[in-house]
Amino acid sequence: MSRLIAIDDVDDIAAGAAILGCGGGGDPYVGALMTQQSLRAAGRPVTLVAPADVPDDALVVVIAGIGAPPVLIEKIPNGSESELALRHLERHLGRRADYLMSAEVGGLNSLYPLQVAAKLGLPVVDADGMGRAFPKLEMTSFHIFGIPTTPLALVNERADLVLMQTTSDQQAEHFVKHLAVGMGGIMSSAGFAQSGADVKRAAVPGTLSICQDIGRALRLARQQRQDPFEALLGAMRATEYYRHTHLIFEGKVTDVERRITGRWSMGQARIEGARGVLEVAVQNELLVARLNGRTAAIVPDLVAVLDEDTAQAITAEQLRYGQRVRVLAASVPPIMRSEAALKVWGPQAFGIDEPFVPIEQLVAAAAI
Amino acid sequence: MSRLIAIDDVDDIAAGAAILGCGGGGDPYVGALMTQQSLRAAGRPVTLVAPADVPDDALVVVIAGIGAPPVLIEKIPNGSESELALRHLERHLGRRADYLMSAEVGGLNSLYPLQVAAKLGLPVVDADGMGRAFPKLEMTSFHIFGIPTTPLALVNERADLVLMQTTSDQQAEHFVKHLAVGMGGIMSSAGFAQSGADVKRAAVPGTLSICQDIGRALRLARQQRQDPFEALLGAMRATEYYRHTHLIFEGKVTDVERRITGRWSMGQARIEGARGVLEVAVQNELLVARLNGRTAAIVPDLVAVLDEDTAQAITAEQLRYGQRVRVLAASVPPIMRSEAALKVWGPQAFGIDEPFVPIEQLVAAAAI
Repeated sequence: MSRLIAIDDVDDIAAGAAILGCGGGGDPYVGALMTQQSLRAAGRPVTLVAPADVPDDALVVVIAGIGAPPVLIEKIPNGSESELALRHLERHLGRRADYLMSAEVGGLNSLYPLQVAAKLGLPVVDADGMGRAFPKLEMTSFHIFGIPTTPLALVNERADLVLMQTTSDQQAEHFVKHLAVGMGGIMSSAGFAQSGADVKRAAVPGTLSICQDIGRALRLARQQRQDPFEALLGAMRATEYYRHTHLIFEGKVTDVERRITGRWSMGQARIEGARGVLEVAVQNELLVARLNGRTAAIVPDLVAVLDEDTAQAITAEQLRYGQRVRVLAASVPPIMRSEAALKVWGPQAFGIDEPFVPIEQLVAAAAI
Repeated sequence: MSRLIAIDDVDDIAAGAAILGCGGGGDPYVGALMTQQSLRAAGRPVTLVAPADVPDDALVVVIAGIGAPPVLIEKIPNGSESELALRHLERHLGRRADYLMSAEVGGLNSLYPLQVAAKLGLPVVDADGMGRAFPKLEMTSFHIFGIPTTPLALVNERADLVLMQTTSDQQAEHFVKHLAVGMGGIMSSAGFAQSGADVKRAAVPGTLSICQDIGRALRLARQQRQDPFEALLGAMRATEYYRHTHLIFEGKVTDVERRITGRWSMGQARIEGARGVLEVAVQNELLVARLNGRTAAIVPDLVAVLDEDTAQAITAEQLRYGQRVRVLAASVPPIMRSEAALKVWGPQAFGIDEPFVPIEQLVAAAAI
């Protein structure tokens, strides 16, 4: 199964990805602009291919932005970085990529492979390595299945290149953390090189088309003056992945604390409403929501803050005082909640000293 | 002109290089052990070739240890890092190296290319890019003559690789500074790839054989129970480079301040003697010596602290309270004192707000 992605589809993907990206994964507006421009210049759509249809021996390369998302708003990629990163990686591998793929679901990172693919006439695999967005390189399904992060090529807006080949995925993250400030806070990358056979066993399939479907449902609801939240919940619950999707809070943002530590944007947001106070902890992405001190949703389950009127996602870096919002939480696929997976991206991986409790249990317990 | 470097020659080179390395360039004992082991395993000497005899179209690669020298004492390279760095660089260049060369004169860094060359059966060029040791990547004669630092391959003791290709030499230094701690404080590198024609115009020629000659003179003096300082001054003054060599102070080390900032070892040493107090400022290397507050020798001219009995150099990281020492200062070749050169490695390049004054003028003024 394959779809063609044209200019008109980009906004839908960006809107859906921003929600599933949990406030991270890069700005959807920047991602959409870059990709539309690239599709326009190419004059042809990009083919989105289901993992099952990728030949086992194809070379699949993952394209992603890495760094602190707030930097991206002030310093938009010039559009050549990711292609340059890809070329350097290919030179190192001694082989050209046959397909591109996303590292994570997110406003920029779902679209970034499409942007390069349009330029180069390559197809994109309908899958990613996180099933949402996470802030560390080793927090991928690829890592869980033993597909290395490196060789990883990083390129900044000045066209400086760093290519790393590390002895562990954690070491790659360690180096990126140290390099982030030196390279300007945000980098474009090409890495996680894998075969079609690898994609079939290790990637989270179908996420790009799910983003598009969710985004389209939202757009149609707005066009037809229907309740966008109802449309969103309907579209998400209709997927295999996000069956348990709930609006867990409604209120006004009353405080946002944010600091860029170099590699990441860390912080928290406070939202006040009729039911009390919801606090959300952030490391690039929204990690955990606590309602009046009690955990209401926790990583890896999704937490997204949405505009009260449009149901559009507000990224972590766009959160600010006075916004009226609803907070959405959703289950992730069972494969993302396995013991092996929780070791990689469960609460403990973020230094949060509490167990993972699925959103459906939290919701049932609180009788929301 | 070429020489063969055998196991017996290594200690002489290390001893000479430690003096000309101005306290930096890595520990000579570590450098000698590694190189002797490598020569022993190879069972054959390494050919040292004068720059004039390197074919114009040959590929010359520079091998060097980069980082804070004190780390090297506790974490000796396992001997495979620099070969791995070379292999990665060659893969990136798509071509094998024909010759290896030193980045700087120093206890480890003069010998490091010999260590790899012995293993791989390659010749080494009798030259380097600093004519002494300096603490920054862009402080090379290569930089002055427009030969880029990158592509630069860095490998640590865990065999993690980082290959960078930057848009400026300063940017490469900037990245290394950020990466240093992440990579473990000390790295082995291969870079400054250049042609034989480049070497002829941009390298400081003859430095490795000068190190050997100086080291041999010291060894012979000790064997024949002659004054090693007299032998050293004689050997240095006999070279084209170090005609103005002086012992500028004699005393006891009374204080050493040292902090590893990640990329560098920064600090200063205080030496007290009959003529007052000599203070020496350190950034990996000894940069400036001040006698009772007045400048007595200043970068790029050489400053070396020598053991009072043996005239052996004491590296900056080995300096400690109670050592009885003599301090040597020497001129560098005129090409290293040109206006263009002083911009790269003159006092201002180290944030020292005073002009460069040649040692021969300082000595004449003080009537030492």
